[in-house]
Amino acid sequence: MEVAAARIVFASDFGPGPYAGICRGVIRRLAPACDILDLTHDLPAFDPRAGAVWLAAAAPYLPEAVHLAVVDPGVGGARRAVVLACARGDLLVGPDNGLWSLAWDALGGLRGAWCLENPAWRLEPVSATFHGRDVFAPAAARLALGEAPDAAGPAIAPSSLVRVALPVARVTAGRIEAEVIALDPFGSALLGVRAGDAAAVGLRPGVRAEVAGRPAACVATFADAAPGGLCLLGDSSGWLLLALREGSAAMALGLRAGAAATVTFAPASS
Amino acid sequence: MEVAAARIVFASDFGPGPYAGICRGVIRRLAPACDILDLTHDLPAFDPRAGAVWLAAAAPYLPEAVHLAVVDPGVGGARRAVVLACARGDLLVGPDNGLWSLAWDALGGLRGAWCLENPAWRLEPVSATFHGRDVFAPAAARLALGEAPDAAGPAIAPSSLVRVALPVARVTAGRIEAEVIALDPFGSALLGVRAGDAAAVGLRPGVRAEVAGRPAACVATFADAAPGGLCLLGDSSGWLLLALREGSAAMALGLRAGAAATVTFAPASS
Amino acid sequence: MEVAAARIVFASDFGPGPYAGICRGVIRRLAPACDILDLTHDLPAFDPRAGAVWLAAAAPYLPEAVHLAVVDPGVGGARRAVVLACARGDLLVGPDNGLWSLAWDALGGLRGAWCLENPAWRLEPVSATFHGRDVFAPAAARLALGEAPDAAGPAIAPSSLVRVALPVARVTAGRIEAEVIALDPFGSALLGVRAGDAAAVGLRPGVRAEVAGRPAACVATFADAAPGGLCLLGDSSGWLLLALREGSAAMALGLRAGAAATVTFAPASS
Repeated sequence: MEVAAARIVFASDFGPGPYAGICRGVIRRLAPACDILDLTHDLPAFDPRAGAVWLAAAAPYLPEAVHLAVVDPGVGGARRAVVLACARGDLLVGPDNGLWSLAWDALGGLRGAWCLENPAWRLEPVSATFHGRDVFAPAAARLALGEAPDAAGPAIAPSSLVRVALPVARVTAGRIEAEVIALDPFGSALLGVRAGDAAAVGLRPGVRAEVAGRPAACVATFADAAPGGLCLLGDSSGWLLLALREGSAAMALGLRAGAAATVTFAPASS
Repeated sequence: MEVAAARIVFASDFGPGPYAGICRGVIRRLAPACDILDLTHDLPAFDPRAGAVWLAAAAPYLPEAVHLAVVDPGVGGARRAVVLACARGDLLVGPDNGLWSLAWDALGGLRGAWCLENPAWRLEPVSATFHGRDVFAPAAARLALGEAPDAAGPAIAPSSLVRVALPVARVTAGRIEAEVIALDPFGSALLGVRAGDAAAVGLRPGVRAEVAGRPAACVATFADAAPGGLCLLGDSSGWLLLALREGSAAMALGLRAGAAATVTFAPASS
Repeated sequence: MEVAAARIVFASDFGPGPYAGICRGVIRRLAPACDILDLTHDLPAFDPRAGAVWLAAAAPYLPEAVHLAVVDPGVGGARRAVVLACARGDLLVGPDNGLWSLAWDALGGLRGAWCLENPAWRLEPVSATFHGRDVFAPAAARLALGEAPDAAGPAIAPSSLVRVALPVARVTAGRIEAEVIALDPFGSALLGVRAGDAAAVGLRPGVRAEVAGRPAACVATFADAAPGGLCLLGDSSGWLLLALREGSAAMALGLRAGAAATVTFAPASS
């Protein structure tokens, strides 16, 4: 298995403050020539499921790399730290909380998994609150330098890894009972149903719909929506998207990840 | 025309979420060794005019590069995607909505323009909502690799490009009726009048002024303003700036881009 | 004294807008091959003391480099601009307002200091409001290119440098009167007392405490706290941390940097 040599793609929920930069410093000290590509540090805080949705959306567009992701509400607790190898050659590093579980298929599927336990791979003493700095970043750096993933610790069964479960939308004729699985940076809501499934029960440009008691237009693209109007369309990763043209649907409707959202489509006029 | 070979400067209104990182991934896959310099991903959302103001402020300080900028409220609609060549050697990539129209003069002026239509330059299928990922980032990568801009698509007349129009301030003796054209990250307001023009009708360190019915001191530098006090001065790109010392003028006065702002200067004491 | 050749670590309070990117552009023009590692641009605005706390937290994890930091409420005023040399080989660039004063010991201590006055090192004309762009970034680029720090301007006595003073917590049996010295990106509050000092008067996993009249659990790690519950523990840089599990203590308690925080520990049960 060939492994991407000197590139780390880094995602976290650390926000704009110094935590992501401290991790970059740790990587740079160990791997001075490694390319560090920041994916985002604005993954929803404490929410591995929403993080998993975004990593899955990004995965098809990322270069072969050591992928480091840290959304880790269980830091310091019993959750495992893991290194995963994908068929394409990518290595994934992060907590075993499902964060990577929607993305690895896009990278060819899992080829192996190891528990990140080697003390020599950590910055000692390991803090109780910042494993991004003390455990995950140094491991990513070592992997980027070409150290073998099986040096990270004991092999574990991929089937033992935590997976996130997305809510299953209830899709019936003209009606979808879904859940907001994530909000995008513009405040548009990804509803937990595939646009293709929505198309089968009524989503089609020109159709009128209703969401949370408010009218929404089914459109092919934002430019077809009325300014300030709610609209429904397939998003760039295939989810049904609820958006407000040139505004924030989340703010207008008070939406948050996990909120229920029922969509009804008007019957096609005869 | 020589073109900067392997550097992309990237600006957008994508915010801190994963969209900018996904574009960086697309670039990295196509151009593994290309230097990616992020200018900002906090350009005002859906507002090409404010984006144009910031790109113009930045342009004199940027290295020769392929400059990628995406503020694209018309994504998926009829607006064109374009590649522009500047006399200095820079190439500009983005939607044809005026975003670059205040910056290209600082890069020596336009030498050529092409419509970005070559399907081989896109990631197919092109989504309806994310041309940053599917159209603009891959085009920037190809240009950074040295492909010729005329391979992007048909040449178009530079005179046909959309230009943004800044509001024209009304400048009379002792009085300026202007508009907030942008807010800076500290909440200071760029008023749409050049500091030099303001100086001609009263702006001078020590002069007392009034903005929106509140007193403001004309100062040479923030350090000359009273703590928490409003002040007026020339900003680092030559605009008249309304600031609150160690605070946010935008928050204190409820200012937003597009708001009217009338400044009156007290007559010089005799 | 050997100096890190081609790496700049960059921190500021510029936020996500274009100011940090403009500085990166200035660096890239002068030093095209220099590695630029962003630490953070979210240092608390106008607050060199809080910035100093974060730079001190980061310093042990940063590579040898030219370190550029700009939190500069006194821009344009009488404060000096300085270049500092540390024993490890790092060079520090920034305003002389104490921003670096908690970090230099972690880099081996000061070996020299110079006033940044050489006009040839600046972008002329120097603006009144943006010395990050006109003074500090170009100086950092020159140092990264290998120019000697004594070319920046006259040597000054390290003892003359401004230092920030952290508040001194009042630590008595079972009680700590401290101050919030910084908020982390998750809204946890760093209280201005070392975790070791807190342990000497009652902090110990399992102990019940009270902060601002509300119960807080002393824990070893976040995972030991009740969901949504306040907790106290040592943070990753050794400060006493007040956190809310999977939430924001700052938002829940209305905390800001500078706020007083009194912690009382319940007596150990007999």
